[in-house]
Amino acid sequence: MRTGPLDAETILTATEDVLRRHGPAKATVLDVARALGVSHASVYRHFPSKAALREAVTRRWLGRAREPLAAVATGTRQAPPERLRTWFTTLFAAKRKLLSEDPELFATYRVLAAEHSSAAADHVTDLVEQLRAIIAAGVTSGDFTSPDPTATARTVFDATMAYHHPAHAPEWRSPGAEAALESICTLLINGLRPR
Amino acid sequence: MRTGPLDAETILTATEDVLRRHGPAKATVLDVARALGVSHASVYRHFPSKAALREAVTRRWLGRAREPLAAVATGTRQAPPERLRTWFTTLFAAKRKLLSEDPELFATYRVLAAEHSSAAADHVTDLVEQLRAIIAAGVTSGDFTSPDPTATARTVFDATMAYHHPAHAPEWRSPGAEAALESICTLLINGLRPR
Repeated sequence: MRTGPLDAETILTATEDVLRRHGPAKATVLDVARALGVSHASVYRHFPSKAALREAVTRRWLGRAREPLAAVATGTRQAPPERLRTWFTTLFAAKRKLLSEDPELFATYRVLAAEHSSAAADHVTDLVEQLRAIIAAGVTSGDFTSPDPTATARTVFDATMAYHHPAHAPEWRSPGAEAALESICTLLINGLRPR
Repeated sequence: MRTGPLDAETILTATEDVLRRHGPAKATVLDVARALGVSHASVYRHFPSKAALREAVTRRWLGRAREPLAAVATGTRQAPPERLRTWFTTLFAAKRKLLSEDPELFATYRVLAAEHSSAAADHVTDLVEQLRAIIAAGVTSGDFTSPDPTATARTVFDATMAYHHPAHAPEWRSPGAEAALESICTLLINGLRPR
């Protein structure tokens, strides 16, 4: 039996373990309380439902893949067109890594994405904001033209859906996947150039 | 009880009805035989399994949406860039119509697409070939540049995945969907223009 204060991070780590062992259908508040050796009331104090727990776990898990991507978006070593390409190949690599290293948590994320959960929606908002920064930098440098970098970021994100939306994960290991994403990037970068 | 010869078309029509009433999990050879008032042996003579039946029904059902699209692809009234845009908006309208008029058959198609069935794969091959013809026409007219119109067709098809792949169907009724597809088309058409 566990003693001492129970914080949200401890609960989330235990929930990840329960999800890894039992898959997205499981990980109820009771399962997590049992794994921690505490009463379910003490888990409820932090997370009022199984849905809230899954949201919080997915949010933290997606957040771990964020740093390398944010570094590309704000980096200035590459000109904006190559930065855009690198950002997408980095995103694709990060998504494939999440899928292969943590299939059960990925399955949880896939369920949340299909349900338009706030964790999934906030993840997309964050990614589109990173893309907006790259496109705005390209407008400033004269590499890109865009009357509305936020709208353009959303369009470019939509056009690469097959390489980041979890519904397409089963195809990510096909041999031509990375080259296919590169081809889309080339076409989009051409499309963004001023004429 | 039905008498007289039983042909494949009659069986497919009965299978569509069974799917509409009972959903994609149903429509076994036995269900269809019962609906037709024939022995299951006489259905097996045409379709050896539930999987074969579902394939054939989906193939015929998708084929019905084909004509207006093929007419756009081979039409010469519009210049290739506008033809490409019209083709995608026609495809999106056709997919939304299949979804709203026949949700149970659409669900069947969604299952087959996830399973990479030959009916779903052949549907994609047919669509990419139509796109190839539009891109090749654009290369001839000088509107587009492409070293390999088949590869370019596949890239353009991939970049619009969110607007034709059945996994994204739940989002097709969102208010901005058609405008979002148009934005992708604009960017792709710009990307295809010679520089």
